[in-house]
Amino acid sequence: MAIWDDVIGADEQAQYERAGWGGTVGFGQSPALVVVDMYNAFVDPDYPFSSAEAPQTAKTIRTVLDAFRERGLPIFHTRAKTESLPAARGRWKVRATTQDPLMQSPDAYEFWHELTPLPDEQVLEKTYPSAFFGTTLTSQLVYHAIDTLVVAGTVTSGCVRGTCLDAFNLNYRVIVPADCVCDRGIVSHKVALFEIQMKYGDVVTAADVLTELAAARR
Amino acid sequence: MAIWDDVIGADEQAQYERAGWGGTVGFGQSPALVVVDMYNAFVDPDYPFSSAEAPQTAKTIRTVLDAFRERGLPIFHTRAKTESLPAARGRWKVRATTQDPLMQSPDAYEFWHELTPLPDEQVLEKTYPSAFFGTTLTSQLVYHAIDTLVVAGTVTSGCVRGTCLDAFNLNYRVIVPADCVCDRGIVSHKVALFEIQMKYGDVVTAADVLTELAAARR
Amino acid sequence: MAIWDDVIGADEQAQYERAGWGGTVGFGQSPALVVVDMYNAFVDPDYPFSSAEAPQTAKTIRTVLDAFRERGLPIFHTRAKTESLPAARGRWKVRATTQDPLMQSPDAYEFWHELTPLPDEQVLEKTYPSAFFGTTLTSQLVYHAIDTLVVAGTVTSGCVRGTCLDAFNLNYRVIVPADCVCDRGIVSHKVALFEIQMKYGDVVTAADVLTELAAARR
Amino acid sequence: MAIWDDVIGADEQAQYERAGWGGTVGFGQSPALVVVDMYNAFVDPDYPFSSAEAPQTAKTIRTVLDAFRERGLPIFHTRAKTESLPAARGRWKVRATTQDPLMQSPDAYEFWHELTPLPDEQVLEKTYPSAFFGTTLTSQLVYHAIDTLVVAGTVTSGCVRGTCLDAFNLNYRVIVPADCVCDRGIVSHKVALFEIQMKYGDVVTAADVLTELAAARR
Repeated sequence: MAIWDDVIGADEQAQYERAGWGGTVGFGQSPALVVVDMYNAFVDPDYPFSSAEAPQTAKTIRTVLDAFRERGLPIFHTRAKTESLPAARGRWKVRATTQDPLMQSPDAYEFWHELTPLPDEQVLEKTYPSAFFGTTLTSQLVYHAIDTLVVAGTVTSGCVRGTCLDAFNLNYRVIVPADCVCDRGIVSHKVALFEIQMKYGDVVTAADVLTELAAARR
Repeated sequence: MAIWDDVIGADEQAQYERAGWGGTVGFGQSPALVVVDMYNAFVDPDYPFSSAEAPQTAKTIRTVLDAFRERGLPIFHTRAKTESLPAARGRWKVRATTQDPLMQSPDAYEFWHELTPLPDEQVLEKTYPSAFFGTTLTSQLVYHAIDTLVVAGTVTSGCVRGTCLDAFNLNYRVIVPADCVCDRGIVSHKVALFEIQMKYGDVVTAADVLTELAAARR
Repeated sequence: MAIWDDVIGADEQAQYERAGWGGTVGFGQSPALVVVDMYNAFVDPDYPFSSAEAPQTAKTIRTVLDAFRERGLPIFHTRAKTESLPAARGRWKVRATTQDPLMQSPDAYEFWHELTPLPDEQVLEKTYPSAFFGTTLTSQLVYHAIDTLVVAGTVTSGCVRGTCLDAFNLNYRVIVPADCVCDRGIVSHKVALFEIQMKYGDVVTAADVLTELAAARR
Repeated sequence: MAIWDDVIGADEQAQYERAGWGGTVGFGQSPALVVVDMYNAFVDPDYPFSSAEAPQTAKTIRTVLDAFRERGLPIFHTRAKTESLPAARGRWKVRATTQDPLMQSPDAYEFWHELTPLPDEQVLEKTYPSAFFGTTLTSQLVYHAIDTLVVAGTVTSGCVRGTCLDAFNLNYRVIVPADCVCDRGIVSHKVALFEIQMKYGDVVTAADVLTELAAARR
């Protein structure tokens, strides 16, 4: 049973089967990992952007991160870029970024203590949901000849999904370990995973990713 | 009561209120309309990509389309680009495009009869969900000095949402009339609208758009 | 007589006339200014990226900058983003960035003293020639409903030209005041201006820009 | 002696040496070929966009094309997309496209007879100089795990250069065989090659490309 089965009814899933959605994209030869927005504001329960599951998700992400580190595979970490001008912040429909006192401290933008980037890992500062928009992520993936992007982090229905969509647009194999992503809402979380699995990439588990990495002679 | 209230629980919505998500982006001074993928394969019930509501949605879109036409405002229509090479088709997880006999006929890619583009309306052929990716839509919006993008069409959770997200990335005011978009799944439809309304743009009605256009001296 | 006439022969210019290249794009209603890479490494004669004319060009840029400031029009300043990882630096064919001791000091990346950005002016850190690539410049121009981009800075044949080309791709009206751009090589400078004038935008003078701004009731 | 030595003086070249520009990027493991705009309007001497050298350049391109074909390597051909609406055509400063009767015939947009694409080669229709802008070229290069882009075609200083620049932005290894590109002006041609060689890629010969392909066990 898939984790979205209690949210997406059988009739709705049948509509997808009708056109042959779903199946498997599969791992390629050359994966990279992107950890989306696992900084305090999105992990620590005190902050307004956090999800209840985030600290546990961080621990699971860490197992995947360690596997990428052991093999010397490219790793990217994203966080929001703070901007002083409205045009540079964009049209986000949210008040906390500029009005919540907690978000005015640099601590809000520190990476979660268990997921601190190492010096040879790239930090991408972004403004919009996708890790690709307004950054050089595509260029860096090309530099490393990546064909597979493992996407972890938060929130599933927002920045994770946006990153998956751009990776799909660019013909990367998109892999999302479901236990490495979280969301403030369980319905949004499940629906995002369902739609990714049906159309854009493979929803798997952290264990599946570890198995794939172990199996590959890289 | 919002149309998503029966799918997204109060506790989940409270998580959004906590950070001050939602509110109103508002219409700007210079709107354009994009009608996403309203061609036979996505509207006619015989085709595997259709949604049950699509023919009715087409009628409602037509009222908005007529209002844009009367005022001479820019109008864009998208449809899938057929490609013979796998690299050009991308990693879509779907079989019908290449395997369903119905999809091999040019009829599948004809625009729905009630929404046929006029000669001064731009048809964008696209490969991926967003009307922006791999097209010159951004350039054309700049040419017309557009600040507001009204997004209609299908499916809400896929190409409509992807188009909204890129429009948001580019700082356009995103307006989605809920009765002008449809989806093969009602849960996906509602969740997409909820998330757009919370974060990226305004979910309104066709009537709201007509009122805005009538009120503006353009 | 155009400044490129001693470099591009009459026969070569005749080839352009044959297809009707050249003419005027013209100022639009809503201009922004981008000052490309006017930081110490590109202006101060001590640095390996400087052009002989750069300090004088800075003074002329300042007159245009002041006119934009007086009218409260959007202003962008670019400089190179320093990156520690090779994939993030890209495939630049240059040694000085990483090997010249002068370039290891933060002073190299300080904006030239006469062109220091004000707090309401956006600094864009970029990796590649164009001010658009890997930044949110397009989004910010959309936010301000810009239709005309005045491009100043250095070097004419590199980052200025790359910025003009992307602005042209996006259908912005491109305006280059010839006395507000400079290059390490006079031939490269003149050829770049010739090609911009023939194909992508209008090569004018700082005085022309001041006249346009004064004439507009903005 | 380099082909640009009679146009770019020693003093100007010394400015490049000062910062350590130039050197070699080198072939990678996985090359693709893009043939830029070798259609009648740019090759046949009767048309206003042609270069005198273009028919000879086509013959040399053919030798490289054949080598790519023999090895089953990805090949892309570009040509201009004809558009009926001004916003879709953009702000090109040229009259011939819309006003020269020769350009109104579909013949103008037929590929040059010696360079007709085969069914498994991708034709990209583009609007702006770069083969990347408004197309899915990046996605297709990712699909094939390309790391090296050999750029041939016309004109050197325009669409070839624009394509090289975007390939450079994306961290592809850029290879330009000088005898596989041509321009309506010899100064523009030489200056473009000089600047590409100094900063963005390797300017080589068709023979060099053939040698590289022969040496690789692909």
